[in-house]
Amino acid sequence: MKDQKRIRYSKYIDKITTAEMAATFIQPKDVLGVSGFTKAGDSKTVLPCVAQRGYKENLQLTVISGASLGYDTDADLAKSGALLKRLPFQADPTLRKSIDTHQLFYVDQHLGQTAEILQNLQTKIDVAIIEAVAITKEGYIVPTTSVGNSATFTEMAEKIIIEINTSFPENLEGIHDIKLQKPQPNREIIPITQSSDRIGTPYIKIDPHKVAAIVFTKVPDAPARIASPDANTQAIAKHILNFLENEVALGRLTPSLLPLQAGIGKTANAILSGFVHSNFENLTMYSEVLQDSTFELFDAGKLKFASASSITVSEECFEKVFTNFEKYKDKLVLRPQNISNSPEVIRRLGIIGINTAIEFDIYGNVNSTHITGTKMMNGIGGSGDFARNGYLSVFVCPSISKNDTISHIVPMVSHTDHTEHDVDVLVTEQGLADLRGLAPRERAKLIIENCAHPIYKSELKTYFERASKFGGQTPHLLEEALSWHQRLKLHGTMKKVKQQVASH
Amino acid sequence: MKDQKRIRYSKYIDKITTAEMAATFIQPKDVLGVSGFTKAGDSKTVLPCVAQRGYKENLQLTVISGASLGYDTDADLAKSGALLKRLPFQADPTLRKSIDTHQLFYVDQHLGQTAEILQNLQTKIDVAIIEAVAITKEGYIVPTTSVGNSATFTEMAEKIIIEINTSFPENLEGIHDIKLQKPQPNREIIPITQSSDRIGTPYIKIDPHKVAAIVFTKVPDAPARIASPDANTQAIAKHILNFLENEVALGRLTPSLLPLQAGIGKTANAILSGFVHSNFENLTMYSEVLQDSTFELFDAGKLKFASASSITVSEECFEKVFTNFEKYKDKLVLRPQNISNSPEVIRRLGIIGINTAIEFDIYGNVNSTHITGTKMMNGIGGSGDFARNGYLSVFVCPSISKNDTISHIVPMVSHTDHTEHDVDVLVTEQGLADLRGLAPRERAKLIIENCAHPIYKSELKTYFERASKFGGQTPHLLEEALSWHQRLKLHGTMKKVKQQVASH
Repeated sequence: MKDQKRIRYSKYIDKITTAEMAATFIQPKDVLGVSGFTKAGDSKTVLPCVAQRGYKENLQLTVISGASLGYDTDADLAKSGALLKRLPFQADPTLRKSIDTHQLFYVDQHLGQTAEILQNLQTKIDVAIIEAVAITKEGYIVPTTSVGNSATFTEMAEKIIIEINTSFPENLEGIHDIKLQKPQPNREIIPITQSSDRIGTPYIKIDPHKVAAIVFTKVPDAPARIASPDANTQAIAKHILNFLENEVALGRLTPSLLPLQAGIGKTANAILSGFVHSNFENLTMYSEVLQDSTFELFDAGKLKFASASSITVSEECFEKVFTNFEKYKDKLVLRPQNISNSPEVIRRLGIIGINTAIEFDIYGNVNSTHITGTKMMNGIGGSGDFARNGYLSVFVCPSISKNDTISHIVPMVSHTDHTEHDVDVLVTEQGLADLRGLAPRERAKLIIENCAHPIYKSELKTYFERASKFGGQTPHLLEEALSWHQRLKLHGTMKKVKQQVASH
Repeated sequence: MKDQKRIRYSKYIDKITTAEMAATFIQPKDVLGVSGFTKAGDSKTVLPCVAQRGYKENLQLTVISGASLGYDTDADLAKSGALLKRLPFQADPTLRKSIDTHQLFYVDQHLGQTAEILQNLQTKIDVAIIEAVAITKEGYIVPTTSVGNSATFTEMAEKIIIEINTSFPENLEGIHDIKLQKPQPNREIIPITQSSDRIGTPYIKIDPHKVAAIVFTKVPDAPARIASPDANTQAIAKHILNFLENEVALGRLTPSLLPLQAGIGKTANAILSGFVHSNFENLTMYSEVLQDSTFELFDAGKLKFASASSITVSEECFEKVFTNFEKYKDKLVLRPQNISNSPEVIRRLGIIGINTAIEFDIYGNVNSTHITGTKMMNGIGGSGDFARNGYLSVFVCPSISKNDTISHIVPMVSHTDHTEHDVDVLVTEQGLADLRGLAPRERAKLIIENCAHPIYKSELKTYFERASKFGGQTPHLLEEALSWHQRLKLHGTMKKVKQQVASH
């Protein structure tokens, strides 16, 4: 069988089985560590079979991944009732609904810290399910389009199920750089001083005795949904490019800037695409996800090197990249997410982090996770890893949305994911506020002036002025601070509702 | 003159002048970088003379320190109106009042990030005022009881004023380890893998041409006010020690734990003192301030080594330490605060950080800085540096205070300094909640049960239950979330006030 050539370790041959059979290795109440990071490199058949078991059995599983999974895997895990707990990230509407209706527990973690927490708590991982492009002659795993937490999972797991995905070309081998972090007090220096530095092996070293099953699949990664840049995202991109150009003019940065990180999604993708027609050159990325824009930048000759934990691209981009993979291969590295998101490396390299906010307040606090303070959107992801320890932390969002009923600049955020101390620059399509070195009252003026939408600007100004009469480092009227969110919940709009409507 | 022997660089001799004269080098609108960290190693005469000038002149100074200053220096700077802006920390009631009444701007920064931000913005420091115990034969500065941001200030300053303080013994020389961080992209690895590692020089290298004035003083550091442990702080200490003992029993930690960090103040001091009679041994500290308890632990043979950015002790402890300094000297090192609080080192060593909260909420968010969401207490200090990147982040506070009118566990914090993602363990005298790996709804039950005071427990429970009916990852009733703080403001108590009182 041609596919078996991907297993270069003969002792695994008798482990080959079907996804359904492999899924039977999972016991109720198990803790699973699964590969997959923003839809890339996840289990395409075994984990979905586990989800199906949930319809018939009371599984109560804890499923820990790198980040979000592709296709409907997270939806099926939620719908079938297989989950007791899910961490550290998700981006699925069905799972989200199950979280918000208390069908399961969701632990929203900094993506760079999950491996740390598992290691510190010595959490027992019952089964690791890891996608592979091939098995080395020593029985080690060559991952596919993401590394995520897979090296930590296989290290800590009792059993390992490997899913060999032949939809990926074998020459993916070589782009991974795997190095496990020893627990403290034996933690070593991470000797990365440039995005392109390699410190580990191109495979995940595992104990072959742990391998319980090997399954073949050829389902490709679920493609990223890439929306074309619109007027808003283009305006945001322009503000950021202008700002960075000015930093170069001031002598604070060079035209190659510092390594870029960008969150997942259309805004981040549009911002990076904006660099294609910029004056910047020899750019580098030290990020967690590489999207279509990364390859646009390579093609434009703007980007020298990109480091991340996953590659999540559209179908079209996937085709382009993996049929010409030798063209990109020596410019890429995929790392474990506690290295891609490591505080040590992020501070040392001086990352410029650009992430999306749900809302921010007039003092510079950012909400990345909760709708009106209670309902989960996706999760904090790696935004905190980069915002806290990077050189520059930029947060972006539109100033308004939903037919003007929502202002994304509010008096007080309804949930804080990034505190005023960790936010350097805020951007909407209206403009950019550089908050560095400013006190809260200075920030408020700048944020309202530069970032708020005109239809909400005067009410924000008035709030700030009225609150300021009572003094304080951070003036607030506590009885009104969350009133915009209350209005949205009650009346479907943050706009002031006329008295007769409000008194319903 | 005997004191002049402390200047081993003869070209400085003609720079010797009075504090009043030295203070005239400061111009209106200047940015000053001054030594001093939690009252230790600050300017005792020049900066106070600058403050006095504020009564007669419109100075509008920006004063950047390591952390808080001693005596009434911050109070005088505020009262005289000399300040336009103050950063990154303060702990003075008069200055606090000026901040809250909008007499000046206060920028509350992570103590480990001030040097980074100055360097990134290429901020012009007009004058650095640095306390020294001596001058080397090359003209370099040997600091006193703190390093703080002094090396960054002197590097970036146009002029340097040195204040030689003869109240400190000259054998302080040798305990400092100074290494400047190069700006990115040339930032190097910080090769500290143990608290005791030295990577720099025992002096601050400066350009002697920048030295504008040298002043002598013999005013000692303002002593720390050390309150004896009370029932509350002892109960908190006991909960923490029991928790750590259990972690050792579970095999997660060894009896020497991992390097300890403790915030400033009586609770942190009491907790560390608690280790004297514990079963832990060969302890180390990698902290920002060393208090009396550090030297108690040395005397008890429990502590092997302590690294920090300052030594802030009581008068009695100062006497003990500095008359027997050789006994302690090889067990101590003082570092720049961007090294003592470096994300790289904090993560690598795996710091156990213990810091004080003003309040925390039922989901594990911590407020360290703002009274009822608006008024400044001291500042975030280094708590965020350690909480975010350490091995374990513990926050402590009493469950109630002010004659039971304040519950320090609230439905929603009125200001967030440490988000739910960064808080591992919460402790009050009532008990301890280990939040690691828990979802918000799991945390809420544990926090209310273990940490809340009995008189507020049932209302917290009811809030959580009522909010939970509406679902959500983090259940809240937005219209009530901040009502406890509103009650405190309106009625002087967080307790539910009877209707007739409330309707005043």
